[in-house]
Amino acid sequence: MSNGGGVLSSTNHLLDFLEEPIPGVGTYDDFHTIDWVREKCKDRERHRKINAKKKESAWEFTKSLYDAWSGWLVVTLTGLASGALAGLIDISADWLNDIKEGVCLNAMWFNHEQCCWGSNETTFAERDKCPQWKSWAGLILGQEEGPGSYIMNYFMYIYWALSFALLAVLLVKVFAPYACGSGIPEIKTILSGFIIRGYLGKWTLLIKTVTLVLAVASGLSLGKEGPLVHVACCCGNIFSYLFPKYSKNEAKKREVLSAASAAGVSVAFGAPIGGVLFSLEEVSYYFPLKTLWRSFFAALVAAFVLRSINPFGNSRLVLFYVEYHTPWYLFELIPFILLGVFGGLWGSTRFGKYPVLEVIFVAAITAVVAFPNPYTRQNTSELIKELFTDCGPLESSQLCQYRSQMNGSKAFVDASPNKSAGPGVYTAMWQLCLALVFKIIMTIFTFGLKVPAGLFIPSMAIGAIAGRIVGIAVEQLAYYHHDWLVFREWCEVGTDCITPGLYAMVGAAACLGGVTRMTVSLVVIVFELTGGLEYIVPLMAAVMTSKWVGDAFGREGIYESHIRLNGYPFLDAKSEFTHTTLAREVMRPQRSDPPLAVLTQDDLTVEELQVIINETSYNGFPVIVSKESQRLVGFTLRRDITIAIENARRKQEGILLTSRVYFTQHAPTLPADSPRPLKLRSILDMSPFTVTDHTPMEIVVDIFRKLGLRQCLVTHNGRLLGIITKKDILRHMAQLTNQDPDNIMFN
Amino acid sequence: MSNGGGVLSSTNHLLDFLEEPIPGVGTYDDFHTIDWVREKCKDRERHRKINAKKKESAWEFTKSLYDAWSGWLVVTLTGLASGALAGLIDISADWLNDIKEGVCLNAMWFNHEQCCWGSNETTFAERDKCPQWKSWAGLILGQEEGPGSYIMNYFMYIYWALSFALLAVLLVKVFAPYACGSGIPEIKTILSGFIIRGYLGKWTLLIKTVTLVLAVASGLSLGKEGPLVHVACCCGNIFSYLFPKYSKNEAKKREVLSAASAAGVSVAFGAPIGGVLFSLEEVSYYFPLKTLWRSFFAALVAAFVLRSINPFGNSRLVLFYVEYHTPWYLFELIPFILLGVFGGLWGSTRFGKYPVLEVIFVAAITAVVAFPNPYTRQNTSELIKELFTDCGPLESSQLCQYRSQMNGSKAFVDASPNKSAGPGVYTAMWQLCLALVFKIIMTIFTFGLKVPAGLFIPSMAIGAIAGRIVGIAVEQLAYYHHDWLVFREWCEVGTDCITPGLYAMVGAAACLGGVTRMTVSLVVIVFELTGGLEYIVPLMAAVMTSKWVGDAFGREGIYESHIRLNGYPFLDAKSEFTHTTLAREVMRPQRSDPPLAVLTQDDLTVEELQVIINETSYNGFPVIVSKESQRLVGFTLRRDITIAIENARRKQEGILLTSRVYFTQHAPTLPADSPRPLKLRSILDMSPFTVTDHTPMEIVVDIFRKLGLRQCLVTHNGRLLGIITKKDILRHMAQLTNQDPDNIMFN
Repeated sequence: MSNGGGVLSSTNHLLDFLEEPIPGVGTYDDFHTIDWVREKCKDRERHRKINAKKKESAWEFTKSLYDAWSGWLVVTLTGLASGALAGLIDISADWLNDIKEGVCLNAMWFNHEQCCWGSNETTFAERDKCPQWKSWAGLILGQEEGPGSYIMNYFMYIYWALSFALLAVLLVKVFAPYACGSGIPEIKTILSGFIIRGYLGKWTLLIKTVTLVLAVASGLSLGKEGPLVHVACCCGNIFSYLFPKYSKNEAKKREVLSAASAAGVSVAFGAPIGGVLFSLEEVSYYFPLKTLWRSFFAALVAAFVLRSINPFGNSRLVLFYVEYHTPWYLFELIPFILLGVFGGLWGSTRFGKYPVLEVIFVAAITAVVAFPNPYTRQNTSELIKELFTDCGPLESSQLCQYRSQMNGSKAFVDASPNKSAGPGVYTAMWQLCLALVFKIIMTIFTFGLKVPAGLFIPSMAIGAIAGRIVGIAVEQLAYYHHDWLVFREWCEVGTDCITPGLYAMVGAAACLGGVTRMTVSLVVIVFELTGGLEYIVPLMAAVMTSKWVGDAFGREGIYESHIRLNGYPFLDAKSEFTHTTLAREVMRPQRSDPPLAVLTQDDLTVEELQVIINETSYNGFPVIVSKESQRLVGFTLRRDITIAIENARRKQEGILLTSRVYFTQHAPTLPADSPRPLKLRSILDMSPFTVTDHTPMEIVVDIFRKLGLRQCLVTHNGRLLGIITKKDILRHMAQLTNQDPDNIMFN
Repeated sequence: MSNGGGVLSSTNHLLDFLEEPIPGVGTYDDFHTIDWVREKCKDRERHRKINAKKKESAWEFTKSLYDAWSGWLVVTLTGLASGALAGLIDISADWLNDIKEGVCLNAMWFNHEQCCWGSNETTFAERDKCPQWKSWAGLILGQEEGPGSYIMNYFMYIYWALSFALLAVLLVKVFAPYACGSGIPEIKTILSGFIIRGYLGKWTLLIKTVTLVLAVASGLSLGKEGPLVHVACCCGNIFSYLFPKYSKNEAKKREVLSAASAAGVSVAFGAPIGGVLFSLEEVSYYFPLKTLWRSFFAALVAAFVLRSINPFGNSRLVLFYVEYHTPWYLFELIPFILLGVFGGLWGSTRFGKYPVLEVIFVAAITAVVAFPNPYTRQNTSELIKELFTDCGPLESSQLCQYRSQMNGSKAFVDASPNKSAGPGVYTAMWQLCLALVFKIIMTIFTFGLKVPAGLFIPSMAIGAIAGRIVGIAVEQLAYYHHDWLVFREWCEVGTDCITPGLYAMVGAAACLGGVTRMTVSLVVIVFELTGGLEYIVPLMAAVMTSKWVGDAFGREGIYESHIRLNGYPFLDAKSEFTHTTLAREVMRPQRSDPPLAVLTQDDLTVEELQVIINETSYNGFPVIVSKESQRLVGFTLRRDITIAIENARRKQEGILLTSRVYFTQHAPTLPADSPRPLKLRSILDMSPFTVTDHTPMEIVVDIFRKLGLRQCLVTHNGRLLGIITKKDILRHMAQLTNQDPDNIMFN
């Protein structure tokens, strides 16, 4: 194929300095897909170099040790930073949230609870009323009670909520547009091998942290759990710059990001194992076992840092610890499955997408409507906690005001079977129904706003409210109709057989499952959140129902639909390719297209090459032996060719536009007067992936997914026919499902 | 390439019945590797057929529903059966174990504990001494005490142990040789795509269940946990025969087996999440997310069935529940890491391989030595439980006889800081040291015996003994030298700062980690076993140390080394390929080999084809356009060719030895008098995987691992050069690590 040219053979040696890496070759443009195979090869090469050198000197040995440990170091740092930031966010948001209602006179920087800790005159029940804490009405009008102060407090509440929301949206708009939303869809896309520069940078981190606090404190119907994953990934990305092993290799960097996302969920829910499973099931694309182990470590470190900071003053590892006293009965599966259906419907809701100014309206409406209803005014996490909790003798919640308690026998409320709902429960039911409608509407509008916003906690709240309502309804049904067959069978008279808190837990899991379509990781997260290992069957039934219902209505989870709306090139590993098309139907060129742009291995000039590059917009070109044989030699990238030619014309003398370009080992035989040829073998990928034109697309899709390819060449009986890129596959898949293939925007 | 022959074009249509599937094509021989890609394509094809038909009639729709649900059904059945069998094994082994010491007079089928439940004259402390339970000496000699009855009991103990062991080994030898060992290495190999017929069959299941009970009851130093994974996988395999979706597809069957192995670990340790992670981390090869979810379900079902059976009469979900009263201190990391080193050393021990008769000697020695020492005579699980337990005021164990207890203030032993060891502790220390030596030696010899034998529990016991010894040593050190810097810093005088039980737990995890090299799944299993979420850092430190030490000494876990010893073709997904070899250095033929055996697409006769098949032993042959061009058309398997020719000669008239064989779409132009040609296109794989000769082997290995290939063709500039099979890769890897490449025995 290539023959050492007699004239030039002496200069071949001189040209070998070109085998030195050309700066810039092997990097990626913004909004491009990485080549996993190449990245992994680069990393192994680096590893081999370090290994070969390490016996040379003590310094090299130390360097190799540092290199070997840098993986653990970077996940440790990420875990520490994620835990610390999560603690900071929790504390600040809590404080800022209380600012809406009043201020601590002793110390401005105390929140309501901390303010009243010092006060020893208050009883357990009234521990949040203490003289140090002044509501705004108390501070401004000098009186805590009465309609005037209620209106004053209401006004201040709206004022602060609006200020926080406006500040958040402006900060995002001006400084870091990437800081809005939950960030999980983008992180999924990045982990699948896409480049979005700045998405995980320090500015995004800073602004996201600050605005997350503001957004949460503004009382908007959003959660901080999703954005915490983004924050953790920013930490992982920033720390990876300390280690060349990770900063210079996009594939390795994604291992750190996988670990970081595990740490993010770990701090969001206090669920380290759930975090690892979330990273594995939901966000990660390439997840080697080494990453599993490091993710676990990062998740643990983060959880322990957060627990040491102890932002809520209770040293529980479990966020919503529940302890129910009654088992569940088989007939309860019906309401649980209904809750699953509700969760699935919630999961197939379409969320809005709104520009900046809408935030003021949404924040204003949220504040106006939320204030009067205790269940919407309350911090969402606390609401969920209250809804999960079973009514015990010590429970002072309105939800637990059953009739027997009214009759004065307060201490025996739990033992008493007379669980007829008191007026408190009826009030609570109305308020909960209103809160449910409010939360559903506001969450739909809030999620599209340009502020950091997660869906986990609002979804859980919606599910928990619905669940508690259903639970109380079933409980009252069982009380008033204990002669019905189902109840007679299971609920003996005089026993307390329905636990409304369990319904809330099941509903929360169902709604979360409907939105995210998580399964194992969700169940594990709920375990770790609640410590309730006993209720696995109700949880699984509801989560599975919600997933099926969601799939039946919406087909995809919130993250996938967000990815598709943004046109990111994401090849989902979960959805199976079930069509019977062959590679030749997907490859380009099709019959109507211009012929495939190819380079021949040794008879193009620099000028011809530049013409081909300028006239086409392809990201890479196959190199063939000759136009006649169409036998494939390799593949070369547009970016690399441009860089290499520029580099050669700058550094190598005698390279003209008429210089011959060759990709072979030896220069071709040239006429004596021709200018010095340009060797481009170093940028030639001599092991391009090929498939035959008869290969079923399901295999091609599998190869792309599992190996993380950018493109693949198509041959027929050894001749090059065409090329399939990731974008071609995504467009083909969109066409097959009757979607607009032009939605796929990036390569 | 192919031109429709004028003469024969009218018969082409007649030949099309050959496109019907030929019976036998697409199945595998015993001890061969499956082709994952082909299996998955077959399954998608089946799925499409069912989907296309389902709108035809209600019956077809029901069938499609059944098909869609069969995955859940088969894992549910597997979970149920695994749980039930585990319960049965637990109960039987417990009963048979007690038979060695005596018999229940009331009811033969009661074990010691059940026998004494009815007895109400015994106190809590002496609950295992009741008149209904007679030791053998009591039954035969009529006296329970004295040296004569001790010898009698000793003799009976040895007698029963020997009988059980002999019976177990004979049953295995005669009926199911595959029932020996833990089975996990073979299951790993099977899951990676190897066929071992009968390994998961009903005979193996029956014999393994029976002999496992006998082997455990014989008192040999082995565990039932590993074999339970094998039992669960047998259940999975047997149930998969009920569903054609799984029985007819080797790739789909392996999804069921992955779920079954999760169920096995789940019942072995009562650890469903750990079981799923074990399946994911340790045994599975191809683990799609759907399998994750189903594995989780199978693991839960199995755990719940076992808990409902409740074989040990305590309804704890947690097997070795621990509750420690003191935190751990930073300086304790040193002994924990030392325990990790011990675990790593234990993990790099080489275990023996012994023929049948050795079992008698091992069982005899085990029984003779084990009887006098309470720690070796005891059931291993109970020993581990005792070692894990912290000394509380109610603890009557010899290990808790501290000095203060001697002075009569028994109730305050836990509150008292005077934790000077009493004579009981010193006796226990000696006995534990002897038990440690004994367990180590006996486990090394036992694991090679031809009986069902797991290493999990013996390893945990060894680690727990070592840990408890270290723990007591550190505790006494802290007591006698509380003025030392480390102890002065952390252990205030008067407080109890060392928990020997924690050391036992850490030691057990370290030894288990050293043997199996599990990481995340091990830590999660220990969590679920002990409920001790607080001690994650000590556990991780020890497990990681033991893994590193084990890797440094032995390089591979027990399963990998067992796989290698047996020469199974297992391409480990965990070990990275770090060499720089290229595909052309690994492919066959190399320079000294005979040329590659290829078939041309349309100019061979049946006879020539048979000659090629008979003269070579290759499992498949590339098909090329012509000898001159060497352009690749496809690949065809030896087994398929043999079956197709036989089938054609039996069913198709006019096929002679001189018939032309063609793989093209249309028959080649032939002379008018030539016999009818044979079309073999239906057995031609037109999408063989190819790589170029320049492809680095690391990429080739990656492709083989991730796609589950059997072979891959090597081309250079579009021409076929050679072939790389899985066996070639494994031999190449063995050569590179200076091992004997001929160890790899199967294809």
